[in-house]
Amino acid sequence: MNLPNEIVALNHSETSPVFTAGNEVLRGLEGIFDHHASVKHDGCGSRSNVVIGTAHAFKSSCTGVIVPEIEEGFWLSINGSSVKIVGQNDRGALYGAFEYLGMMAQGNFTAVDYVTNPDQPIRWVNQWDNFDGTIERGYEGPSIFFANYSIVDDLGRANEYARLLASIRVNGIVVNNVNANETLLKDENIIGLARIADVFRPWGIPIGISLNFAAPKDLGGLETFDPLDQKVIQFWQDRSDTIYKLIPDLAGYLVKGDSEGQEGPLTYNRTLADGANLFANAIKKYGGIVMYRAFVYEKLNKTDWKSDRAKAAYDYFQPLDGKFEDNVVVQVKYGPIDFQVREAISPLFGSLRHTNVAVELQITQEYLGQQCHLVYLPPLWRTVWDFDLRTDNESTLVSEVVSGRRFNRPLAGSAAVVNVGTNDT
Amino acid sequence: MNLPNEIVALNHSETSPVFTAGNEVLRGLEGIFDHHASVKHDGCGSRSNVVIGTAHAFKSSCTGVIVPEIEEGFWLSINGSSVKIVGQNDRGALYGAFEYLGMMAQGNFTAVDYVTNPDQPIRWVNQWDNFDGTIERGYEGPSIFFANYSIVDDLGRANEYARLLASIRVNGIVVNNVNANETLLKDENIIGLARIADVFRPWGIPIGISLNFAAPKDLGGLETFDPLDQKVIQFWQDRSDTIYKLIPDLAGYLVKGDSEGQEGPLTYNRTLADGANLFANAIKKYGGIVMYRAFVYEKLNKTDWKSDRAKAAYDYFQPLDGKFEDNVVVQVKYGPIDFQVREAISPLFGSLRHTNVAVELQITQEYLGQQCHLVYLPPLWRTVWDFDLRTDNESTLVSEVVSGRRFNRPLAGSAAVVNVGTNDT
Repeated sequence: MNLPNEIVALNHSETSPVFTAGNEVLRGLEGIFDHHASVKHDGCGSRSNVVIGTAHAFKSSCTGVIVPEIEEGFWLSINGSSVKIVGQNDRGALYGAFEYLGMMAQGNFTAVDYVTNPDQPIRWVNQWDNFDGTIERGYEGPSIFFANYSIVDDLGRANEYARLLASIRVNGIVVNNVNANETLLKDENIIGLARIADVFRPWGIPIGISLNFAAPKDLGGLETFDPLDQKVIQFWQDRSDTIYKLIPDLAGYLVKGDSEGQEGPLTYNRTLADGANLFANAIKKYGGIVMYRAFVYEKLNKTDWKSDRAKAAYDYFQPLDGKFEDNVVVQVKYGPIDFQVREAISPLFGSLRHTNVAVELQITQEYLGQQCHLVYLPPLWRTVWDFDLRTDNESTLVSEVVSGRRFNRPLAGSAAVVNVGTNDT
Repeated sequence: MNLPNEIVALNHSETSPVFTAGNEVLRGLEGIFDHHASVKHDGCGSRSNVVIGTAHAFKSSCTGVIVPEIEEGFWLSINGSSVKIVGQNDRGALYGAFEYLGMMAQGNFTAVDYVTNPDQPIRWVNQWDNFDGTIERGYEGPSIFFANYSIVDDLGRANEYARLLASIRVNGIVVNNVNANETLLKDENIIGLARIADVFRPWGIPIGISLNFAAPKDLGGLETFDPLDQKVIQFWQDRSDTIYKLIPDLAGYLVKGDSEGQEGPLTYNRTLADGANLFANAIKKYGGIVMYRAFVYEKLNKTDWKSDRAKAAYDYFQPLDGKFEDNVVVQVKYGPIDFQVREAISPLFGSLRHTNVAVELQITQEYLGQQCHLVYLPPLWRTVWDFDLRTDNESTLVSEVVSGRRFNRPLAGSAAVVNVGTNDT
């Protein structure tokens, strides 16, 4: 067996996923083969080494090597103990390092040379962790983030979770429940959130925050949370400025408005687009995005017998197509009801042509045994990806919509509700 | 539009599916286009016609035309109003006629020339019709076959149902419930069953019968139904001889033994293979097959905590692999429990190498809304077909098993529980 003796991770910063990737390869070679290599952060090294870096850094260090075109993924070239792992960005290089280690762990020493890229730009997980430390639809014990209305001191398990997520190419995590507690936005708690962000940053995973739409009133002391009110707009701008000062790479916000007891723009006869754009405008300058949930169904006119929960999301959102800011993504549950075990596909995926959309999946086992049963989810997701909505009588697979290809959207993807906890078993 | 003026259906017998195919094309051209053609049963006709027949008949009538190799399906050649529909057998020609009409109904006038064959040799439906006219898990009204312990006089709807089934290439129908009434085997009732068979014959669909394992005792007056007892063997041979005298093309038997109150071979400490082979030996000389259900779980030793319903079918049947007669097919529900909305695939599909198997599907909506909801089943079936059991670490898709390809079995396929009824809406 011909294993590399040296790892060159082309980034000196410990918060860089490339730096992390170097340590992971070191750790992996030790764990799998009991093989001890060394790590350095400069040069292109000898033939018997692993070079990891962004395309930019790699071209500077290893002049003369032609790097193929890469998007969010990586170029992986393995030839015996000579290994090149190059991402267009830092996290892509980390993904490549995990791919390499996956092959090593399976005893696969094939010489390979290929580029692979994630299909969807947005690959987030949502945690339904409450600020008191409980988890809504959590079946694995208390939160890894929160206890008793503050951020926990020991984020060791959060770090392990970040490692797990990075290894499967997740690139965002919303850390608190969509049924959000507004006090999370107090300054002292934003400082705590920044500590969580620090833990996830080396894994290439920016965090996001769920917002409570009524916070301007309940936290800010205003008399309203009308999304078109200037004081409300100012409240959100102020909170956003504070958050981005402490967490400059915040991925963005997740909002559940007008749903299951959560307030929203409909309270003031504003549209759901007005609600989403309120936040989008506040964080656009920081590059943040707003995931706005389509799970809105309660305020139906129940005297109208055609007013059906299964078409509520369509009725609310389809007429707003094109009204959302470019950094808004409408997050749509895969089925029109609610994570049912078998369910048709939400028609919104085939009918929002001028709006970014993401599919919301559920990994926590709310409807699938609540962790009493072993469940293998990919066949369910495959049915989702492969469903063809035939918009304009053309191929409109959900996978084509949430990759952004079908309607040429810059943002698209998936968000999966995961809800890990602190149980040991 | 260039439509054929003449239909040549190369069979003079009204009970032949080729004869039926000629009438269907006549009826279809009238219904779709208000176009009136004529039907004859000899010759090869002019250029502006449809010729339908078996490969044998076609070669005799249309000398000089090269017919490609066909299995159970058909060769369809359309060039304007010149259409050739050729099956290796009669029912294949009928399938081709429906394919042609399907294209016409969609306004598809493409010139085509291809052979297509069904993937699975066994493509049966099971009716859970009770002899009293009720239907177990039926949601569409009383039986189209039975009322008050006899066969109904008016089989008009049965004929329409046969037409529907033939159009989707079903090639067998078991007309009575697996929880079978033994009195169906009385001579006068076999005469009634023969009337049903007469209705289905022109559509290329032989009927099958569900048997009650205890019939030798309950109907035959014997003191036993032990499958190895000579008098029991003689009872079944006698009934089978009578049945095949009146229904020479009977597809075979379906047996639910040792399950949910039904008696079976386990009562006498005989194996399930002993039970299945009892019937297989009785009808082998007639070309009949025995579908023996794997849905056996009740006689588990409940004091053994490892005795799990989900693995009962595997525990009973896998050790019997290779013990079944060649004309036995073990009919296995897709999941190890019972038609659940989401369920893993039965491991039997990957572990019966020397036994014919068929997958049992459920179309009647027992677990999917009981006809209160609209349900689209193909995504469920696709998950079944595409599931890879990786026997010997090689591709072992359920679709490869039930086509017979994976383990080189001569018999394999599907049986779907349908349960139509006589409701008008």
